[in-house]
Amino acid sequence: MTDHKTANNDAFERMTASTPVFTEVLTAGEALPGMKPNVVLTSGAPMAWDQYTGGQRDAVIGGALFEGLASDAADADKKLKSGEIIVDGCHDYGCVGSLAGIYTASMPVLAVENTANGNVGFCNFFEGPSPKRLNYGTYDEEVRETLLFVQDVIAPTVAEAVKRSEGGIPLRPIIRRALGMGDEMHSRNAAATLLFGREMVPYLFEMLADKPDQVRQTYAFMSDSPYFFLRLSMAAAKATADAARNIEGSSVVSAMSFSCSQFSIRLGGLGDEWFSADLEPAQAKLFEGFGESDIEFMGGESVITETVGLGGFAQAAAFTLQDYQGGTPEDMAALNRSMYEITVGEHPEYKIPYFGFRGVPVGIDAFKVIDSGIQPVMDIGIAGGDGRQIGAGVLRAPLACFEQAIGAYNDKYGSR
Amino acid sequence: MTDHKTANNDAFERMTASTPVFTEVLTAGEALPGMKPNVVLTSGAPMAWDQYTGGQRDAVIGGALFEGLASDAADADKKLKSGEIIVDGCHDYGCVGSLAGIYTASMPVLAVENTANGNVGFCNFFEGPSPKRLNYGTYDEEVRETLLFVQDVIAPTVAEAVKRSEGGIPLRPIIRRALGMGDEMHSRNAAATLLFGREMVPYLFEMLADKPDQVRQTYAFMSDSPYFFLRLSMAAAKATADAARNIEGSSVVSAMSFSCSQFSIRLGGLGDEWFSADLEPAQAKLFEGFGESDIEFMGGESVITETVGLGGFAQAAAFTLQDYQGGTPEDMAALNRSMYEITVGEHPEYKIPYFGFRGVPVGIDAFKVIDSGIQPVMDIGIAGGDGRQIGAGVLRAPLACFEQAIGAYNDKYGSR
Repeated sequence: MTDHKTANNDAFERMTASTPVFTEVLTAGEALPGMKPNVVLTSGAPMAWDQYTGGQRDAVIGGALFEGLASDAADADKKLKSGEIIVDGCHDYGCVGSLAGIYTASMPVLAVENTANGNVGFCNFFEGPSPKRLNYGTYDEEVRETLLFVQDVIAPTVAEAVKRSEGGIPLRPIIRRALGMGDEMHSRNAAATLLFGREMVPYLFEMLADKPDQVRQTYAFMSDSPYFFLRLSMAAAKATADAARNIEGSSVVSAMSFSCSQFSIRLGGLGDEWFSADLEPAQAKLFEGFGESDIEFMGGESVITETVGLGGFAQAAAFTLQDYQGGTPEDMAALNRSMYEITVGEHPEYKIPYFGFRGVPVGIDAFKVIDSGIQPVMDIGIAGGDGRQIGAGVLRAPLACFEQAIGAYNDKYGSR
Repeated sequence: MTDHKTANNDAFERMTASTPVFTEVLTAGEALPGMKPNVVLTSGAPMAWDQYTGGQRDAVIGGALFEGLASDAADADKKLKSGEIIVDGCHDYGCVGSLAGIYTASMPVLAVENTANGNVGFCNFFEGPSPKRLNYGTYDEEVRETLLFVQDVIAPTVAEAVKRSEGGIPLRPIIRRALGMGDEMHSRNAAATLLFGREMVPYLFEMLADKPDQVRQTYAFMSDSPYFFLRLSMAAAKATADAARNIEGSSVVSAMSFSCSQFSIRLGGLGDEWFSADLEPAQAKLFEGFGESDIEFMGGESVITETVGLGGFAQAAAFTLQDYQGGTPEDMAALNRSMYEITVGEHPEYKIPYFGFRGVPVGIDAFKVIDSGIQPVMDIGIAGGDGRQIGAGVLRAPLACFEQAIGAYNDKYGSR
């Protein structure tokens, strides 16, 4: 049998040595390896078009319409069925999707380079504070205008600012500090958004005379949306997790992802194969006026943050989240502590003040998950069937994914 | 006997209803009631000049020199002895001093109005990141230049920005949010500084074309110094605590303050009389290279934050502080919890996430302190004899102050 511990330590070292740097803004067509004009990317292990349902299906159709690939929803559906428009999974194109996570070729993406490893992760932009968003399954004139505003005003301004920074904005120091300021980098990015804004202001000052309106609008957009930084956190996590891809013998999870129906994982030692199982219900706290029956899964790849030891794996750094996603501080600390039992080690620099500055637990070992029966926990936004966020909560990765993955691992490498 | 509970509830209501708003920047001479050109204000209940020793004495002399009231230190000493220059206590002039806390007439101050009560609190500006600062007992050409930079560049720029805000910058929402982001508003103001910076940027954008250098320098000064906001927090706390002054029958502490040798308190029902006792040693964590014997008290009135339920009374909101001032999260939570036993009630809006959003404990009741023997705890910066910050720690208010205060209370109002 292969010594998975050495491989896992390698995965752990590569993830914790990662130095994500926000380097540029590009279009998805320019940035994403393999991206084509007729492709719509969505969250989760890729499925056949007819398996996408509800809000995620609507979101893919919305993406096709936004990109001008179809004249109306029926036309988009026909073309998606025929393969004239291709629906595919974000992860295979170097990016990760928030909720439904729609990417089309013209949309702007944030590029985050893991300079320690030379690879790049991408994420698209937060759509802004409106509850109606494409990534929550809604597409109409209002959503289209917001997407165009992001494309025409926010993205070019952020692009120019980061270009002026010469070398990009290092995100590791921002994440390190934000963990000491109540963020866990998934459902809470309030401090990181402010810290990032602070880094951008000197460049915005330089640009103000030439582009006064764009600069003002962009600063307001960035600072009014505590979720602005989430997209950079996701791109950073993707660039970090990808450093643990394709490590011979590794049983460390290199990606987690879900679609409208399936939760999926990849292991570093098993290439790009997904191991999937039905989603389990989330433990949700819903906004006023919504009930359990309103909850609808539409996909989600922000769980890449948990893959690298953040989000639910750092929730004891973010007790303020209890207000948003429920639970008590004691529950949050206990859940967070249990994640140390299924991970390889502790991050040397990302630390949890409440745990006496213990490093966040990094590197989910599928063997440890199976042996302990402890499911990885994730802090997620909850979507409603009417196409908007209706709450937040805690999701657990199904054990069945890990059982399948370990089965495949044993087939390839021999049983322990 | 007087019903102190009703009076104390009144004090509590007035403190928790306080709405501090940063309204303007003025000179101390313009702003402080009773301020005169030959006055140097310092921290603590006022003492005769010959009782000020060490760094606090040096700081007062430095203030006199900065203001041009004397030709050299010997001249300043002579004039302070003769009364030609007057040394007095900050609190009687509506302001509070950080460490030695020097104010002279030409220095700029931040004005914070408690709009719910109509009174105003003042604090001077953070001197910047250099370890050599007047308020840590050092005065030389470098310190003088920093003070002039603050006076000539930072203060006028902040003054114009706040004027442009029309109505000022409300601080209550900033404090509320910062408590959810790891600040306790005394030894940690990292989030509040960022939140305040975010409020200022739109006005700095407006001013950039006219004053490009000043705006850039001011933004850098504000955002590089996590202590920038402390001075606003102190002015807000002073404006809040003063709302609990002069409430007939109140046994609630309306001010705490210390000099180089004495710790002093005031009670709301006993006018402006100070009750003083010798300072107790602080539980300190010192920066690399310093030892206990380097510690020197030079005064401090940032403990006005504890007077209104922040700082040490909110330390469980700021576990990151353990890195800076020592202690474990468990100790911090226990100390913080014990403060509920000596206070009147819980703030309706300033809350501690780790305590399940329990409001911070507000209104130190001297009777409860005496009955329980629990001393108020304060998060403080520690000064060294060489005139700089050498660490941070936890200070306890001496019980003897409270015994004297209760003695005077009983003399005035009759024993319980």
